Amino acid sequence: MSKVLFAAKPQAWDDYEHPLSDAFAKAGLSVDLSRSHAAAETDYIVFAPNGPLRDFAPYVKAKAVLSLWAGVETIVGNPTLTQPLCRLVDPGLTRGMVEWVTGHVLRHHLGMDAHILGQDGIWRDGISPPLAAERPVTLLGIGALGAACGQALAALGFAVTGWSRQPKDVANLRCLHGADGLQEALRDAQVVVTLLPQTADTQNILNARTLALLAKGAFVINPGRGPLIDDEALLAALDSGQIAHATLDVFRREPLPVDHPFWAHPRVTVTPHIAATTRPATAARIIAENVRRGEAGLPFLNVVDRQLGY
Amino acid sequence: MSKVLFAAKPQAWDDYEHPLSDAFAKAGLSVDLSRSHAAAETDYIVFAPNGPLRDFAPYVKAKAVLSLWAGVETIVGNPTLTQPLCRLVDPGLTRGMVEWVTGHVLRHHLGMDAHILGQDGIWRDGISPPLAAERPVTLLGIGALGAACGQALAALGFAVTGWSRQPKDVANLRCLHGADGLQEALRDAQVVVTLLPQTADTQNILNARTLALLAKGAFVINPGRGPLIDDEALLAALDSGQIAHATLDVFRREPLPVDHPFWAHPRVTVTPHIAATTRPATAARIIAENVRRGEAGLPFLNVVDRQLGY
Repeated sequence: MSKVLFAAKPQAWDDYEHPLSDAFAKAGLSVDLSRSHAAAETDYIVFAPNGPLRDFAPYVKAKAVLSLWAGVETIVGNPTLTQPLCRLVDPGLTRGMVEWVTGHVLRHHLGMDAHILGQDGIWRDGISPPLAAERPVTLLGIGALGAACGQALAALGFAVTGWSRQPKDVANLRCLHGADGLQEALRDAQVVVTLLPQTADTQNILNARTLALLAKGAFVINPGRGPLIDDEALLAALDSGQIAHATLDVFRREPLPVDHPFWAHPRVTVTPHIAATTRPATAARIIAENVRRGEAGLPFLNVVDRQLGY
Repeated sequence: MSKVLFAAKPQAWDDYEHPLSDAFAKAGLSVDLSRSHAAAETDYIVFAPNGPLRDFAPYVKAKAVLSLWAGVETIVGNPTLTQPLCRLVDPGLTRGMVEWVTGHVLRHHLGMDAHILGQDGIWRDGISPPLAAERPVTLLGIGALGAACGQALAALGFAVTGWSRQPKDVANLRCLHGADGLQEALRDAQVVVTLLPQTADTQNILNARTLALLAKGAFVINPGRGPLIDDEALLAALDSGQIAHATLDVFRREPLPVDHPFWAHPRVTVTPHIAATTRPATAARIIAENVRRGEAGLPFLNVVDRQLGY
């Protein structure tokens, strides 16, 4: 019987206890799932970066740390973490991200807010948005999430460019890479969506210089990671009109402090890190699959490369 | 040289004069386009239902009336109109409708308004919408526009049902028809989108009885025609909570009068008949193609069936 430690916040236990037990049973695994296994006896750690566990050194037997989150930047540099670390790549999370990104791109493309906020009896017709084909959208980051978002937007007719640090090829997208590709990807884009992992290289990738490359009045949508954007540069670009609106789901500090200028800015929409939330049922199946692989001596899925940081 | 009369509002002339001239030239047609041809000498009438022309009897030579609009219900019963009447079926209009419908379905699905209207410093996390696959969406009307919208929504993962009066089969949609099918299509739907033509049969198709079939807290989206909905029944359903929100683009009277209760209702979003607007460049190419067909003795595209009314 494998001892699986659940190391996340108490609320997560309520959400995950039954889905994980069900998924282990369906995978034919004999698992003792608990929040209080002795460290030296633990075989697997189901882990959330916002939970209490920080010191992995006592878990000498643990075969893997299985994250419930896709983003692992707060844990990847932990020197006590010597076990394989697996990110969660959840199809439910990808679908949720596609829905959130597509919805907010369409919201800005269609100019919905003017109507949602302007129910004042004035019939504001005569202003048609361009068709999506005339709206260049750039995705910074075309990993699993970014590529899926790009394909959904392309299917709706948007002119989509995807950028990544290393060369990638995603169907229906104009794919660019590297430093020169970044300039080209951002130049004259009317919507930019940031879906990069958080690393030293991607920090502040949207800054005064890169925001200036976008089309005047562009929209910024960040469902990725807070530090991808230089907050001060974004506020300045919003005030100058270079950026028409920013919809931000992630921040350097979460919850976003109540006195942060993003809350009060009329051209910023703050959403509370909801773009893609892990669904317990689908996440549990993926955790169970990795335990099954560990028990069968097979390679784990979605092992984090410590050099790359994701 | 064909004499083509332009019979629409003066503003439309500003929008259409050059696109139509260009399209006629590109189609190799010799056309005299004017707003003031003598009725008896006019070969074709380019027509908008909100323009001045009401009496078609003097146009004894006209081979066709070519509408700039998709909806022709205000003209189809005109007894002086004996010439073939062609609706505009514009791929740009279809794309625009797909973008508007998809955007507003996603807006309601994601609960965007709570964030757009609630930028008050409160971090409202913990409430995730279901995935699209768990959100049943019903389209009333699966003609060219409805079918395209249904397919875009299905591609995003929504569980889409399409209803039409006569049996139809649209890929990726559960298709129902007729009176029994209507009950089944509406039962437990969480979003309903009305894209039917306006006829005696479709008038008030959303009424107290049919609204009650939807899931509690459903969303109504009407980019079709105002009379498809019984306004009083919708207001009552909004007040009872049966309908959570209605986004309405079309009305019995347009512009919607400033004192209409839809403007003031907190759970209604009025948009000013913008869901699908005809783009002059694409529309002009379609008008030119029908003139070319008329000159070549070929059947016109999109001739209205006077019995069906569309």
